Amino acid sequence: MRTIPSRVLPVPATVSPELQQAIALEWTGSQSPVSFTAEQWKALVKERDAVRLELIRGLSHLRVSVEETVVGGVRAYRVRPVEIAPENRNRLLVHLHGGSYVFFGGEAATAEAIQMAYYGAVEVLSIDYRMPPDHPFPAAIDDVVAVWKELLKTRDCGTMAMFGTSAGGGLALAAVLRLRSLGLPLPGALMAGTPWSDLTKTGDTYFTNELVDNVLGSMDGQLEATAKLYAGGHDMSDPLLSPVHGEFSKFPPTVLLSGTRDLFLSNTVRVHQKMLRAGVTAHLLVFEGQSHAQYALVCDSPESAFAFGEVGRFFDVHLRK
Amino acid sequence: MRTIPSRVLPVPATVSPELQQAIALEWTGSQSPVSFTAEQWKALVKERDAVRLELIRGLSHLRVSVEETVVGGVRAYRVRPVEIAPENRNRLLVHLHGGSYVFFGGEAATAEAIQMAYYGAVEVLSIDYRMPPDHPFPAAIDDVVAVWKELLKTRDCGTMAMFGTSAGGGLALAAVLRLRSLGLPLPGALMAGTPWSDLTKTGDTYFTNELVDNVLGSMDGQLEATAKLYAGGHDMSDPLLSPVHGEFSKFPPTVLLSGTRDLFLSNTVRVHQKMLRAGVTAHLLVFEGQSHAQYALVCDSPESAFAFGEVGRFFDVHLRK
Repeated sequence: MRTIPSRVLPVPATVSPELQQAIALEWTGSQSPVSFTAEQWKALVKERDAVRLELIRGLSHLRVSVEETVVGGVRAYRVRPVEIAPENRNRLLVHLHGGSYVFFGGEAATAEAIQMAYYGAVEVLSIDYRMPPDHPFPAAIDDVVAVWKELLKTRDCGTMAMFGTSAGGGLALAAVLRLRSLGLPLPGALMAGTPWSDLTKTGDTYFTNELVDNVLGSMDGQLEATAKLYAGGHDMSDPLLSPVHGEFSKFPPTVLLSGTRDLFLSNTVRVHQKMLRAGVTAHLLVFEGQSHAQYALVCDSPESAFAFGEVGRFFDVHLRK
Repeated sequence: MRTIPSRVLPVPATVSPELQQAIALEWTGSQSPVSFTAEQWKALVKERDAVRLELIRGLSHLRVSVEETVVGGVRAYRVRPVEIAPENRNRLLVHLHGGSYVFFGGEAATAEAIQMAYYGAVEVLSIDYRMPPDHPFPAAIDDVVAVWKELLKTRDCGTMAMFGTSAGGGLALAAVLRLRSLGLPLPGALMAGTPWSDLTKTGDTYFTNELVDNVLGSMDGQLEATAKLYAGGHDMSDPLLSPVHGEFSKFPPTVLLSGTRDLFLSNTVRVHQKMLRAGVTAHLLVFEGQSHAQYALVCDSPESAFAFGEVGRFFDVHLRK
């Protein structure tokens, strides 16, 4: 135990003006325990999803089309940029949205998918997996597996990647653990962006970056409540809930993203280190000054364009054509 | 500007017991301004080098031999493990020690070299470059260049890597910038461990990890004084002093190391990102819970063995035989 005195954090001079604006904001959440009824959760989801849809409307200049579809019985969104790069003609990126396993269902799912489709010049399928309060674990994983099985009927697994940020990054890791245990072909590459790989408050930056991160703020409060809501009484140390406890041998090449202020920096580097120990090709990107997932949230920043460009390059190296 | 309240940091459960012991320690330094005479610096150097020699004596079980030599007119140490791996027979790793460009000259230079030689099963040449107060910038770089030129007379540049931690990591980056501008052949690979790539207090984790890092503590105080002593009045934004301002095209494949509590995490990731933008193969490792350079300082930890093993594997992939 060491006590760190109160400090004043300046906005770093080493990031873009767009990102500086986002870094300067106060965290608006609370560390007080949350105990909501299902109805209260649904009201909060509605409110937060509406904010996310605003962010998505701000991406309209990218001219990426979003079309609702159903794959393997699961609702999803087909997300297509105006231009698909020639090397990506037969490729598909399967997207799992973030939102603490509770928020950003429906069309709100597609914010990150749109950015990836645009900067990667590649088609994306964003899965609108089922979520609590109505559908806790393992419904989300079951949905991803159902979609994957359907895609395998017409596509080569090696031409497809899976990607997601936050809960979406954790879900991508858990889904691949599940696919591997089912003996199914795995994606050719993976992106786990600041993955929620440990649903308990375990790991160094849950503490060192507490209140330093102005997106998540703290595991205490709403975040902890969503973890419990999703787990629905299951043991949180189950690798399908907290994939940092998984064993990563035979995992596809994986790129992991985080930031210096990210509450989930430890969630990210712990998975990275375990992957390296398992002999997996694993590439880590840590963005200067960024709190949780800001590479995806500060959409107009050059850092965001670079992040998705870099993920696209990683996929291009590792996916079959 | 955001104010972060005082916090209590627990020792993470997610690292080895050896590392937990080191993480639990209080920082023993001070943030008060330091203004020493040359004689006072020399007395402090003597004291701190003696402590480092203790650490080196604790590595005697690795049975690595250390022999003083002179290469290109510069004092150096030939560091050889009992077993050299067959693929490393013709390879040499050139080591640049850390110590804020002031400390750990003489035999104290060899701590990291011994670990790298042992875990990498490879010969290391550790350069005892000149340092202030007698020899400020650019004496250190001149010494590295002199040694490199001498080595090139009998060795293929692609069979040699350059590596170092902290000031040694910054010096490795600066030396390669200098070699490139001289039109000399570059090393086949590079390790920049938590490099002191910015000698000014610029970059996010100089603030977010201030007093969280229990090795360096803060840029204020002795660290700032050593930067000034080394620069000797030169402009600190010169890429040879603060290599983060350099341009990294044509750099050899580089592995960069840091930790979640590292005051120099931003110094590390800023270089990593610039390298990626320049098209350089750059691999980032961030160790859970570690303050500055603890992968090299907590010598008996499994994390340390893993770190040097991973650097060794990186060199093995990228160096010619």
